[in-house]
Amino acid sequence: MPRVSQDQLDARRHEILAAARGCFARYGYEGATVRRLEDATGLSRGAIFHHFRDKDSLFLAVAEDDAAAMVETVTRNGLVQVMRDLLERAGASAGDGDTAGWLGTQLEVSRRLRTDPAFAKRWAERSNAIATATRERLQRQRDAGVLRDDVPVEVLTQFLELAYDGMVLHLATGRPPGELSRVLDLVEEAVRRA
Amino acid sequence: MPRVSQDQLDARRHEILAAARGCFARYGYEGATVRRLEDATGLSRGAIFHHFRDKDSLFLAVAEDDAAAMVETVTRNGLVQVMRDLLERAGASAGDGDTAGWLGTQLEVSRRLRTDPAFAKRWAERSNAIATATRERLQRQRDAGVLRDDVPVEVLTQFLELAYDGMVLHLATGRPPGELSRVLDLVEEAVRRA
Repeated sequence: MPRVSQDQLDARRHEILAAARGCFARYGYEGATVRRLEDATGLSRGAIFHHFRDKDSLFLAVAEDDAAAMVETVTRNGLVQVMRDLLERAGASAGDGDTAGWLGTQLEVSRRLRTDPAFAKRWAERSNAIATATRERLQRQRDAGVLRDDVPVEVLTQFLELAYDGMVLHLATGRPPGELSRVLDLVEEAVRRA
Repeated sequence: MPRVSQDQLDARRHEILAAARGCFARYGYEGATVRRLEDATGLSRGAIFHHFRDKDSLFLAVAEDDAAAMVETVTRNGLVQVMRDLLERAGASAGDGDTAGWLGTQLEVSRRLRTDPAFAKRWAERSNAIATATRERLQRQRDAGVLRDDVPVEVLTQFLELAYDGMVLHLATGRPPGELSRVLDLVEEAVRRA
């Protein structure tokens, strides 16, 4: 039997994560049974848990995958742009499985943070990475003179995070985007130099 | 047997709501079994469901009770004040059962909105009442000349709602308040006349 290359392993892992994300989003953590994960991925439980130790590890990998992608976007374009992208995707197609899945996973993370201290501890590291990327980008903007300078960078960071959390909760609960695009203009204006 | 007065009925109803709120917040909707609701209220299932048709009605009554209280505060003091009160209570005592319960209920509502279309429909009316109270108060402030007038009231309303949703998600997931008090100063400043 030919050996499986690292590329093939990575590709398989990526496929499992994508399918599992949709499954967690749709059924929640508890409702995403191993049987449903098998159906969603088209793989046996043996194949799935060859890549991820258990369901909890799979869920955390999905959430970490999302967080890592977000850190990249924040570093490059800032947290407001992350929100604009999210809004655009949510508005473009209400039935967009990827975006709905991503939002659903975010709420599921929130739920587990509240009810599962061990998960909260494992999660804190990733969550800090997003805050750090946001803070560092704001500091660079302040150095460049485009940010208001009468409010500490830390407060501006938490202001943007508050807006981000609000947008996740708004969209994840299926509410229409409404005027959120103009709301984001206000958010952006509030951190800029007048 | 003496007849039970309306006051007594109301008091009993209020007691059940308070105990049930904590129970839903702690265990989630599914986990708040009838047995746990009996333990939390100190009443039999017969007594509980004399006041509320079923568990779903009890849950919705808890959520509606919270929403009604919030509409009152918004009308009187505005949504930013609601956020300040929430923050103060969350900061004053991490173990404050009422605040933790209230926050937990908010997230539980969010979860059910996403997964239960029938619930979402029943909930929409209450949710609209909060938005309406916020919008009307902002309009009064604009008429009084204290609000910025270069942005539609509707956009300012949704801006405040975004901040409120963000705060609920932040606090309900047990994250520390951090600089949120100064963040609220920023939120307030963003809607005021410069």
